[in-house]
Amino acid sequence: MPTKIVLVETSHPGNIGAAARAMKNMGLAELVLVRPKHFPHAEATARASGADDVLARASVYDTLADALADSVYSVAASARQRTISWPEFEPEEAARRLVSESTATTKTAVVFGPETSGLRNDDLELCQALICIPSVADFPSLNLAMAVQLISYEIRLASRDAKPAGPVRESPLATHAELENFFQHLETSLSESGFLNPRSPRKLMPRLRRLFARALPDQNEVNILRGILASLWTDRRS
Amino acid sequence: MPTKIVLVETSHPGNIGAAARAMKNMGLAELVLVRPKHFPHAEATARASGADDVLARASVYDTLADALADSVYSVAASARQRTISWPEFEPEEAARRLVSESTATTKTAVVFGPETSGLRNDDLELCQALICIPSVADFPSLNLAMAVQLISYEIRLASRDAKPAGPVRESPLATHAELENFFQHLETSLSESGFLNPRSPRKLMPRLRRLFARALPDQNEVNILRGILASLWTDRRS
Repeated sequence: MPTKIVLVETSHPGNIGAAARAMKNMGLAELVLVRPKHFPHAEATARASGADDVLARASVYDTLADALADSVYSVAASARQRTISWPEFEPEEAARRLVSESTATTKTAVVFGPETSGLRNDDLELCQALICIPSVADFPSLNLAMAVQLISYEIRLASRDAKPAGPVRESPLATHAELENFFQHLETSLSESGFLNPRSPRKLMPRLRRLFARALPDQNEVNILRGILASLWTDRRS
Repeated sequence: MPTKIVLVETSHPGNIGAAARAMKNMGLAELVLVRPKHFPHAEATARASGADDVLARASVYDTLADALADSVYSVAASARQRTISWPEFEPEEAARRLVSESTATTKTAVVFGPETSGLRNDDLELCQALICIPSVADFPSLNLAMAVQLISYEIRLASRDAKPAGPVRESPLATHAELENFFQHLETSLSESGFLNPRSPRKLMPRLRRLFARALPDQNEVNILRGILASLWTDRRS
């Protein structure tokens, strides 16, 4: 199942090990770590208790953007701390979408933030949606590895229940890197044109990101959007 | 929500604490421990991280039968090791049944066995059904607290989705203690009559238990069954 589990700035190596075990129990194999505090670590290996292979194959990145570069659809499982609202799904629906966007050649990802602080807003905005685990309001915060277990379980159920043939896309979904190139292109164009004032951005880019997160553009569409940008804006100062 | 989480012979106090946190995240409050190896324990408190109230209110029993005495419906979440087959449900369906059998005055329970060995057969047979977590075949064994998290999550979803009024029962379901008294009565009668040879029992009682586990008798029905037994068998040796 080509869904990656991405853990950002995990503090406790035991949580990394417990997450690896939880993933393997549910048939997930691809663990990605972004700036882990301690890894590898004996406590991670101990808690993995048999999922050492998942730990051994884990990849480590410096930035979430790099970790998601080949992903076409990413959802964040993190405490809510964002300033603008984002598409939000419960685990079952998020898992259904992750599975239906995964193919043999396209990756999807679930991103988990640091244990205490959750994901930063700029990392949240790299994801297309949020997962909202329906915990109780007055004690909402699950242990990190527990959250990995729940989401991995729902991904397994969704994979099992998935119809063999999903809706056929004309073109594969755009990867994270393709979308980022588009956003960079867009932001540069808007800054140069004066529509976006970098000293007073007023959440313009987050709002545009949200719009495209809902739209889930495919590769053709991103190419078309970039073509439009290029045709509309040429820096007249040059 | 009147579903109890019952942990039998837990070895690692950290798992008890993590289970308490997982329960509280999902709105469950009643933790029952049967012969815990170490409790209370600093490691349990540490892993509970804020669910100390669940630990403080936990009740401790010497036997599973005592722990289940007031429960009308109990399911076991344990590695499979029984010799005869038992009704078996996935977590979602088990949670639906637990919630629909729970009322303000009747308890239901989920029973988790020791970390490595799982529940003994005589403890499994005190339950009406088994929960089968759909893990992968070649790495099936979840960490104990992870399993508590998954089942608690499904109970929360089932409680939220439950219709306010379930099917009305003529009489409340029989409690575990009432059923045990009936089984004791039955076994004694069958031994005295010679139908059950205690030296060669041939799984007769487990098979009868399974039959009644499927039937879920209510209190009236248990009274009727005991009346039938009493009328059919009086020890002719006396």
